[in-house]
Amino acid sequence: MYNYMLTIQYDGTRYKGWQIQGNTEQTIQGKLEAVISRLVGHHVELHGSGRTDAGVHALGQVANVKLPDEVDPAVFLEQMNYYLPEDIAVIALAPVPDRFHARLNATSKTYCYRIWNSSIPNVLERKFLTQFPPPLDIIAMRQAANDLIGTHDFRSFCGLKRFKKSTVRTLFSIEIEKTGSALTLQFCGDGFLMRMVRILTGTLLEVGTGLRSPESMMNVLTAEDRAAAGPAVPPQGLALVRVDYE
Amino acid sequence: MYNYMLTIQYDGTRYKGWQIQGNTEQTIQGKLEAVISRLVGHHVELHGSGRTDAGVHALGQVANVKLPDEVDPAVFLEQMNYYLPEDIAVIALAPVPDRFHARLNATSKTYCYRIWNSSIPNVLERKFLTQFPPPLDIIAMRQAANDLIGTHDFRSFCGLKRFKKSTVRTLFSIEIEKTGSALTLQFCGDGFLMRMVRILTGTLLEVGTGLRSPESMMNVLTAEDRAAAGPAVPPQGLALVRVDYE
Repeated sequence: MYNYMLTIQYDGTRYKGWQIQGNTEQTIQGKLEAVISRLVGHHVELHGSGRTDAGVHALGQVANVKLPDEVDPAVFLEQMNYYLPEDIAVIALAPVPDRFHARLNATSKTYCYRIWNSSIPNVLERKFLTQFPPPLDIIAMRQAANDLIGTHDFRSFCGLKRFKKSTVRTLFSIEIEKTGSALTLQFCGDGFLMRMVRILTGTLLEVGTGLRSPESMMNVLTAEDRAAAGPAVPPQGLALVRVDYE
Repeated sequence: MYNYMLTIQYDGTRYKGWQIQGNTEQTIQGKLEAVISRLVGHHVELHGSGRTDAGVHALGQVANVKLPDEVDPAVFLEQMNYYLPEDIAVIALAPVPDRFHARLNATSKTYCYRIWNSSIPNVLERKFLTQFPPPLDIIAMRQAANDLIGTHDFRSFCGLKRFKKSTVRTLFSIEIEKTGSALTLQFCGDGFLMRMVRILTGTLLEVGTGLRSPESMMNVLTAEDRAAAGPAVPPQGLALVRVDYE
């Protein structure tokens, strides 16, 4: 078997997320597996770096797949893109060692949440951002974000109520930038819990509007209770930017 | 009557262009007139700076409308955007002198054509660019573009066969920039003929691929014959960027 790493871009608008669920065809993984299986002549399984929720996009999702024969990466890439729908594309394909696994070997992931901080709509980019008009105190948001950096139990920011596994994760950085009305929050960490980026963003927005103090963030963390954090912001503003490996 | 200038942004994907045609409802002008007429209680007519074709977008189309009563621009803007579909927005509204006319007073217009010069699709921006994979000689394209600057009879670049009016126009500048796979051609002129930007771009792409020499551009101009120029590129890569007034 030959192991290949795929870098994948998608507009998640019309999908039920990355992962195949039951007999639901409308998933990114499902679409990709169907196309690759058709090209190689039998069913293949794709291993993604992790799930993305319904409506979430990706600029650089990573997956690996084992194929029975060696392929010419440039040719196979073109063939995949020919059969894929216009909202999914494989932007890179490379042979990797047999032991490479897109999820198990990932060392960090970067997500970006985009907010349009204006009462005037942004028509052209509307499917890739969330409009949020109230004035925001960016300095306070950055201060609150700083307290989240590091290794913590992020149970308060986990969207899954009864999550049995460890909810300890390490956040390497949170970068909050504003250019005109465009606000971006970029999160880099070793892994993220279900809806964690969206709940972190929702809580930071509450700091930005003055609903919470920047200092309260430590209390949210130590509460280890979903009710202590803010609401999850909508999925369409979120994109998985990149996945890194050693 | 009170005269107002509107700056309008739209995603032209699902429209038959700017201008109302017969009983076709699916035009930008038609959607805007319907919303404003509803807000003021009787039919109003919008005067656009010019038409955009079916599928063409706008970042800053300009129009003016005469309203029977004075309105609070911020409030009226919000009301319009509330009723407009998500792919059309009014991004600015300002009172203007009674004699102001968006088409007659325009001194220059800027259009941008975006090309994705790669065999790998651009999923997230696919609705606002045209994919064109062949390698391009940007230097040759710039040289050819230079010969188009100035006042010329652009009949060879006019998409309307039997156009009775003058086809003389002045092109102030053509800027061709490439960043990675993203190629943009920005045209600024005193006015543009039907499909002129798309035919200019199609002809410049033929120079880029080596199908024509940069020097041949003068011959295309002097031919005053549509058959001498290249094909019109598709509408989705085109956007009206701005309209300027004195």
